Amino acid sequence: MVGAGQLARMTHQAAIALGQSLRVLAATPDDAAALVTPDVVVGDYRALADLRAFAVGCDVVTFDHEHVPSTHIEALAADGVLVRPGAAALVHAQDKAVMRQRLTELGIPCPAWVDLATSDLAAFGERVGWPLVLKAARGGYDGKGVWVVSSLTEAAPLQRSDLALIAEARVPIARELAAVVARSPYGQGAAWPVVETVQRDGICVEVIAAAPGLSVSLADEAQALALRIAAELDVVGVMAVELFETEAGDLLVNELAMRPHNSGHWTIEGSRTSQFEQHLRAILDYPLGATTPTAPVVVMANVLAGPDDVKPASIDERVHHCMARWPEVKIHLYGKGFRPGRKVGHVTALGSDLVSVRSRAQAAADYLADGDPA
Amino acid sequence: MVGAGQLARMTHQAAIALGQSLRVLAATPDDAAALVTPDVVVGDYRALADLRAFAVGCDVVTFDHEHVPSTHIEALAADGVLVRPGAAALVHAQDKAVMRQRLTELGIPCPAWVDLATSDLAAFGERVGWPLVLKAARGGYDGKGVWVVSSLTEAAPLQRSDLALIAEARVPIARELAAVVARSPYGQGAAWPVVETVQRDGICVEVIAAAPGLSVSLADEAQALALRIAAELDVVGVMAVELFETEAGDLLVNELAMRPHNSGHWTIEGSRTSQFEQHLRAILDYPLGATTPTAPVVVMANVLAGPDDVKPASIDERVHHCMARWPEVKIHLYGKGFRPGRKVGHVTALGSDLVSVRSRAQAAADYLADGDPA
Repeated sequence: MVGAGQLARMTHQAAIALGQSLRVLAATPDDAAALVTPDVVVGDYRALADLRAFAVGCDVVTFDHEHVPSTHIEALAADGVLVRPGAAALVHAQDKAVMRQRLTELGIPCPAWVDLATSDLAAFGERVGWPLVLKAARGGYDGKGVWVVSSLTEAAPLQRSDLALIAEARVPIARELAAVVARSPYGQGAAWPVVETVQRDGICVEVIAAAPGLSVSLADEAQALALRIAAELDVVGVMAVELFETEAGDLLVNELAMRPHNSGHWTIEGSRTSQFEQHLRAILDYPLGATTPTAPVVVMANVLAGPDDVKPASIDERVHHCMARWPEVKIHLYGKGFRPGRKVGHVTALGSDLVSVRSRAQAAADYLADGDPA
Repeated sequence: MVGAGQLARMTHQAAIALGQSLRVLAATPDDAAALVTPDVVVGDYRALADLRAFAVGCDVVTFDHEHVPSTHIEALAADGVLVRPGAAALVHAQDKAVMRQRLTELGIPCPAWVDLATSDLAAFGERVGWPLVLKAARGGYDGKGVWVVSSLTEAAPLQRSDLALIAEARVPIARELAAVVARSPYGQGAAWPVVETVQRDGICVEVIAAAPGLSVSLADEAQALALRIAAELDVVGVMAVELFETEAGDLLVNELAMRPHNSGHWTIEGSRTSQFEQHLRAILDYPLGATTPTAPVVVMANVLAGPDDVKPASIDERVHHCMARWPEVKIHLYGKGFRPGRKVGHVTALGSDLVSVRSRAQAAADYLADGDPA
């Protein structure tokens, strides 16, 4: 796995059960996954020579993030390395202009959009109205690379930068959803229940499985749409389709990720097959596992490290108190140092009552984040 | 963790979620756990110098097996190393004469027994009748070190050996059960549902959670008995109490294990807290986790490698077919080479119907073991 963050860390846990051991290409020896697997290559995913050296002896190469240049992936494939997903699929998770173009061609519902490399912002603004959304075509994540702008004047500094940009209509949304699916090399597909994702400052803080109150027809539509995208784009592995549910009750695709995704962490305990095991099954060309949920309500809450100046308790003490207070909540720590706002872990709560499961997950995550019992 | 077999391997999986990484003392670099954790010390658990070198920098030292000499554990403790469970507790899992003596003093029900170092076999045989059971006080496992003998003549070769032996009455048993519990340094106890263990040739092949048809009163008695033993012996960590359920409906203690145990593997998917996480919580002095089952019926079946001469499919093909046939069965492989009879993995099936869950688990395990779909 190229990249050694928490996704690789959790993939290694799943790999162990399958009798495997995950090799990771890490930026540093203390990356989250590099701390827990013996097979660590330290190198730069932007350097083809490093990728080539890393790939020697791998059965298949996959990704913890979307940042590896397409040309490098193509070069690996030309060397005979099995890369899953391949460059032609992955580009849709790397470049929003390419993704929007392709989904539009496929008739997949997206917000109104234009590529500012070829289209005029003033005309687009006139058509869809201001404020609207500018997005960096490449490199954004967790709310980075996304700007709501109210006028041409406000957009001007971004347009003068050398960023490739797309513009999108700002859609009145009721909430955000995610449809996480997997696809095998031979086209077997599997979908988990559609989840609601709750964002704060552009960062996912909570995932509720299944999305509360989502109609069966909309849930079916979201799963079918995600499975169709996976098939059309020839995805191999796990793919998360981030969706807007509009106030009018429609679904629009927001973004794609072609790897295990934060919106699927709940599957570790909440589904018979976790997204990490499923990603391995897919890329190793094994049949996919059952996606049956293990509880009526599963809530995952991210642990985003609190401010540096509020440290009433060490992380060890926090874990201690958290376990004492919520003996049934599952804790996942990524082995990362706590820096304000950094995603350092997550918790998962399971049960049958939505309100109490959400409240337990949130309280546990908040407490782990800042050690403040309030 | 001293020892790097499958128990350490699965403990490492649990450690990762807690933000930890497990250091193992391995006999060889390709031990099951040594393949999946970066922190491997190769050495001999019988050599105090190796144990001392291994323990440097460990927060706490624990065990994957019971074979470390008590005097070495005491020496480590004298050095200031935190060892859990301690030598005084662990000896009851190392020496059957010591265990029987202590349990008898505590009034815990055991088969009639004598220590042949101090008692006469002829007199014991006269009292309890032949055949009876001879056991090596130390070093036995998986049916090794246990002999059913019909007469003094049959017992004579064993008595002439330099093995320390105990003799036990051969009890007419209805089935075998196991009560797996955990205890923290401050005496918090937690018990999983009592399971039925099915043996073939002295080796556990199947574990059914909870034990089918076990009366609430007998289940309560088994849990209470195990928690009491853990408290009286000052156990820290997971302890499995192997029990006989007699034809008369009584419980008798067979053996003790003070570590995660084969009879607790079902807890990985089948309980809110797995025995591996619980062992870590206990030895790291965290509060214990909830032992709530996640399904009405959970069955674990061991994968015991089939005969060498029947290899219709590679292990990779076997996994492929197994996943296709039973997408909801969870596979755990230990990274070991297949040698006839060797415990190379296990599978877990969950559901609500005992007959179908057992049949799925057994069929999947049998198929993985020998690649024979019959």
